[in-house]
Amino acid sequence: MIVKLSLPASPSALSAVLAALARQGYETKRVELPFGTFAVGLGDGAGDTVSVGAMEGVVWARKGSERAVLAALESAPAGTEVSLGAFTIGGETLAVMAGPCSVEDRDQIQTCARFVAAYGATALRGGAFKPRTSPYSFQGLGHEALEMLADAGRATGLPVVTEVMEPCEVESMAPLTDCFQVGARSMQNFPLLREVGRAGKPVLLKRGPSATVKEFILAAEYILLEGNPNVILCERGIRTFETSTRNTLDLNAVPVLKAQTHLPVMVDPSHGTGRRDAVIPMARAAVAAGADGLMVEVHPDPARALSDGDQSLTLAQFRTLVEEIRPVAQAVGRKVAAPHLPSFGEIKPQGRRRGTGWGLGE
Amino acid sequence: MIVKLSLPASPSALSAVLAALARQGYETKRVELPFGTFAVGLGDGAGDTVSVGAMEGVVWARKGSERAVLAALESAPAGTEVSLGAFTIGGETLAVMAGPCSVEDRDQIQTCARFVAAYGATALRGGAFKPRTSPYSFQGLGHEALEMLADAGRATGLPVVTEVMEPCEVESMAPLTDCFQVGARSMQNFPLLREVGRAGKPVLLKRGPSATVKEFILAAEYILLEGNPNVILCERGIRTFETSTRNTLDLNAVPVLKAQTHLPVMVDPSHGTGRRDAVIPMARAAVAAGADGLMVEVHPDPARALSDGDQSLTLAQFRTLVEEIRPVAQAVGRKVAAPHLPSFGEIKPQGRRRGTGWGLGE
Amino acid sequence: MIVKLSLPASPSALSAVLAALARQGYETKRVELPFGTFAVGLGDGAGDTVSVGAMEGVVWARKGSERAVLAALESAPAGTEVSLGAFTIGGETLAVMAGPCSVEDRDQIQTCARFVAAYGATALRGGAFKPRTSPYSFQGLGHEALEMLADAGRATGLPVVTEVMEPCEVESMAPLTDCFQVGARSMQNFPLLREVGRAGKPVLLKRGPSATVKEFILAAEYILLEGNPNVILCERGIRTFETSTRNTLDLNAVPVLKAQTHLPVMVDPSHGTGRRDAVIPMARAAVAAGADGLMVEVHPDPARALSDGDQSLTLAQFRTLVEEIRPVAQAVGRKVAAPHLPSFGEIKPQGRRRGTGWGLGE
Amino acid sequence: MIVKLSLPASPSALSAVLAALARQGYETKRVELPFGTFAVGLGDGAGDTVSVGAMEGVVWARKGSERAVLAALESAPAGTEVSLGAFTIGGETLAVMAGPCSVEDRDQIQTCARFVAAYGATALRGGAFKPRTSPYSFQGLGHEALEMLADAGRATGLPVVTEVMEPCEVESMAPLTDCFQVGARSMQNFPLLREVGRAGKPVLLKRGPSATVKEFILAAEYILLEGNPNVILCERGIRTFETSTRNTLDLNAVPVLKAQTHLPVMVDPSHGTGRRDAVIPMARAAVAAGADGLMVEVHPDPARALSDGDQSLTLAQFRTLVEEIRPVAQAVGRKVAAPHLPSFGEIKPQGRRRGTGWGLGE
Repeated sequence: MIVKLSLPASPSALSAVLAALARQGYETKRVELPFGTFAVGLGDGAGDTVSVGAMEGVVWARKGSERAVLAALESAPAGTEVSLGAFTIGGETLAVMAGPCSVEDRDQIQTCARFVAAYGATALRGGAFKPRTSPYSFQGLGHEALEMLADAGRATGLPVVTEVMEPCEVESMAPLTDCFQVGARSMQNFPLLREVGRAGKPVLLKRGPSATVKEFILAAEYILLEGNPNVILCERGIRTFETSTRNTLDLNAVPVLKAQTHLPVMVDPSHGTGRRDAVIPMARAAVAAGADGLMVEVHPDPARALSDGDQSLTLAQFRTLVEEIRPVAQAVGRKVAAPHLPSFGEIKPQGRRRGTGWGLGE
Repeated sequence: MIVKLSLPASPSALSAVLAALARQGYETKRVELPFGTFAVGLGDGAGDTVSVGAMEGVVWARKGSERAVLAALESAPAGTEVSLGAFTIGGETLAVMAGPCSVEDRDQIQTCARFVAAYGATALRGGAFKPRTSPYSFQGLGHEALEMLADAGRATGLPVVTEVMEPCEVESMAPLTDCFQVGARSMQNFPLLREVGRAGKPVLLKRGPSATVKEFILAAEYILLEGNPNVILCERGIRTFETSTRNTLDLNAVPVLKAQTHLPVMVDPSHGTGRRDAVIPMARAAVAAGADGLMVEVHPDPARALSDGDQSLTLAQFRTLVEEIRPVAQAVGRKVAAPHLPSFGEIKPQGRRRGTGWGLGE
Repeated sequence: MIVKLSLPASPSALSAVLAALARQGYETKRVELPFGTFAVGLGDGAGDTVSVGAMEGVVWARKGSERAVLAALESAPAGTEVSLGAFTIGGETLAVMAGPCSVEDRDQIQTCARFVAAYGATALRGGAFKPRTSPYSFQGLGHEALEMLADAGRATGLPVVTEVMEPCEVESMAPLTDCFQVGARSMQNFPLLREVGRAGKPVLLKRGPSATVKEFILAAEYILLEGNPNVILCERGIRTFETSTRNTLDLNAVPVLKAQTHLPVMVDPSHGTGRRDAVIPMARAAVAAGADGLMVEVHPDPARALSDGDQSLTLAQFRTLVEEIRPVAQAVGRKVAAPHLPSFGEIKPQGRRRGTGWGLGE
Repeated sequence: MIVKLSLPASPSALSAVLAALARQGYETKRVELPFGTFAVGLGDGAGDTVSVGAMEGVVWARKGSERAVLAALESAPAGTEVSLGAFTIGGETLAVMAGPCSVEDRDQIQTCARFVAAYGATALRGGAFKPRTSPYSFQGLGHEALEMLADAGRATGLPVVTEVMEPCEVESMAPLTDCFQVGARSMQNFPLLREVGRAGKPVLLKRGPSATVKEFILAAEYILLEGNPNVILCERGIRTFETSTRNTLDLNAVPVLKAQTHLPVMVDPSHGTGRRDAVIPMARAAVAAGADGLMVEVHPDPARALSDGDQSLTLAQFRTLVEEIRPVAQAVGRKVAAPHLPSFGEIKPQGRRRGTGWGLGE
């Protein structure tokens, strides 16, 4: 059962409600969110919402077993904006999170960071811990990569986003990331959802490949229930029979999520399609559908990427992407962050891959 | 085997190639298309493309059993435009085919026709023969509806599009329609594909709910093989596990089809989502993804529609749709047909439903 | 609306009910089935089941728009058995329909027929008109194949089953087949369903690759509504994300269909899996799940088959299949038809492929 | 890269191979399994299998990035049997793991345990930590439930199987369970797979709802790579468009897995169908398809179950299940464990639910 308290919630009213929930057999929890104070009864209780609903200081009491309440649009009809670095996700400016699938070395992530910052990215993404289908595939550079990513973020002023795979890693990763990504395969890793909920930082929650919209929102509910309102939903493709794309990017989820939840909704056309030639068209489409932002994989040299090379944009293609989504954003009343180009003269890639086309090639 | 002949194809060279195909065990066929003359060997033959490729007047010879050739982009790299009424599908102006799921009576279709014509539609759609999951559901008014639809088309200057379900109906329907729609459930009704191919008129081919992109293009190949180049592909949602939408509109198919075929690609967000609140966002997204047009269901009074009411737009919503796709179209270098409003004063609905909100109400 | 009349249905009561349905706005139809006489109102009527339910001679009146009524288990709780040749499908003896995907020549079908008859088949299947994804693939030998198939059936005493693709072919095919197969791609070819319904012969209705169980039963309802009770449902695999099998044979449909309909349920493990090595295990599983029969593809020389060679059993494998399903059938209270071996000495294949392993080789 | 060493593997040959892998850029690992000693190179290395394959003591060297090697049938063609309690999974006797979805109280699990032991179960299942779609649902009794489950196992002589959700829980749970279950939602929780791999105990690995067979086997490979050969694969239903069952139990996976891997394969018809009326037919089908065992949910009073009541069998139904699978098992050359009934007189349920039908009622 979830009970919303009137504002300001008096401590005595809250205590009384929690006690009533406990008497009904629930495990109780108090949740403070920007849009309200809630008393929550977890597990298998009597479910008497009538008597609780009539208690002092109670706005409403609902059973919540089958659908989300805290993440539902009704709980915050004006929508939630999540602050990340200098930008706010869910506002007028589109979030553009760009960077390589995996952080591979210092040059690669610095090159990427400077380039995407120069052309309108609002955050830098990069994988340090990579969940891979095969144990023989490259699994990321781990903590070393986190440091490189954080450095690249500092150098460019971009907040960084990276995936966390285990609850016990949350604490050690927190100082090195501005936003935790919960990957598609972890969408229903409930211990992990609780842990990133407790951490309080923004969480980019990716939709599982076979998750319904309803399950997706309930996964977000796990995070909100820990008192963390900073959840960003990210559609990244579902698994269907179609094989011409790696996944089937389900843009329908954008309007559906917008109709059902107050959380910002982003779209990842890179994983969603798995084909470089479809990324830009689907990025335009996502913006037109009403998405609050995009997450795209960009690599200075996709052909040599250690993971997801087929779907990564080159630097030049990223610039094209931003140029192409700008007018679409305007057409739907949004905008792309202003590019800030001054330091771009310095970003010529250096080091072992110098001759291999890093930079603007393709 | 498919053999492309050089232009102009000499009758003797063509005859020689057809004879060679026959000797290899194929059933032979000559296909004339705007982008070339082809000699085709059907069925199970020897597959010796080398000797045929070396014959006089032959550009190339390919086995074609597993993939499309005539519909493939390589056969007409500049793309195909299909003329329909005053417009050309696949050109700068977006095709907007609008109208009710089913033609229900004269007033309904006339009201719809005048309204959608006034606000930028380029064709009028309406069902006369309706494939319905249940035999107890309304199955369309049949030939009577075709007449009403044709009348409404004439009254507004809009070409009409309607579904044909049986090969033997093609001939009798031809005088009453400008474009045959082959519905999703008929995408692999091969006798029907051949028959609409022979009819020569434009064919709007809808993707089957479990058809891959490859199968979709091969279905188009059946039509082209009858010498009919006027095929318009229409993505309308695939069947997945997700239940928050009626189907999963697969916009990824737009860039993928554009990369693989020369045919125009339209999108039907009405069937694709099955939810009125998702139709406009997904229409914008389709245009942004590069679609050549939209097919949308519009009904003067969706709550009373005999079929598909949940996904039909009101007249006012259709106007909003056009207004919202216009700037998106411009953002991707396309445009919406100019509205032509003069006669709109006359379209006040009349007859039995007068008091029930027909017209602009939502 | 569907109205069941009490037995014997008096002509005057029936007329009165039909008149009442007409007054409510329905198109009316009288349906005689072994389990009852029904008055049916089609399309969009007033739906007043109360007044009709109270009329003389009426057992019950139900709206039927969203679910099947005539095919529902409640309409014939004892189940329906369909006679085909010397056997009854749905009784104790399992139906085993075996034969090649396509009839390719006289030797092939005669060899197959004699062999499968000798080892326990109860019907001979073979394709004359083949729906093929690609127009360049072998499409069947057509009427010539029908004659060969009918001859092979006569020679072995087996009834024959073959696919019909067009409504207008039903009449001409009827004298040459004992059972019409409606293929998976035609499951919702409603004009075809009506036409095979009218023909009255047994119909093997295959489940569409993306059809729900509910839609499958409603497709059967179209046939029953024409007064034809001889419908055999056949699960043959649905389309899912899994690619290790051609389709995902959905055996769950067997108990689910048995719980919802009175019609016999068969299973096609050949199309359902597309892998020869999975056909026998899944055939055993189908029998254990409660299926009333199996349809399997058998070819004297699968490596040279013109269609579906990968999933066809050799003659020897067919014998193994029957040997392996026999004890499973007994375990669930069913049995396999007795083999009748006398003429088997004559079936040594002759003709062009003599040296290529026809017969018992694998 | 994976390198198989000849037996007995000399320490110097192994060291030399590991050094060669390190020189090629791999992270190296030595893996000892009953069917061989392997030197493994993880991550992104040069992939020169030729030079490594020629080294002393090397049987073969393979790249392994895209497919499983240790779990592949070729690595142990005779198949793997996993010991669990008094039985061996993968041998003649079918494994039958039965028990409630969640351990709810001492009486419930003791009642279940004694009953299922009496009627042929070979292991007791019960959830202590429950992954639930909604945070408001009952999440299991945790460690308290583990104690109850272990007690019930000891009382009946049955080994116990329970789900572990977090890597950091593996160590504390190990003394209380005989077999770790990795749930469907955790199939690609790679840190968890590694941790249960290191623990060495048997692991029941459930297939993810959208996992291909290939991904499923690669998940097992993660466990084997930690030197743990005791992996039991469990098909439990995939997510498809069909809604008449909770999931689509994919029995095709049984023969396909058997053809590709040496690991035992079990089937869970309870989660696989989600319908009590389908559990027994699909259990029979699973055995007929060649499964090595079944996992079924059994609850003394399903209507009051705190989770998964709709799909749980009553005690009486479990007895029926065993009676029905026994002849099917015999038909395919397997057998069900002998029932041991002596103490059954004592299992009359006691405590709070005494009057509610626990025991044999349905």
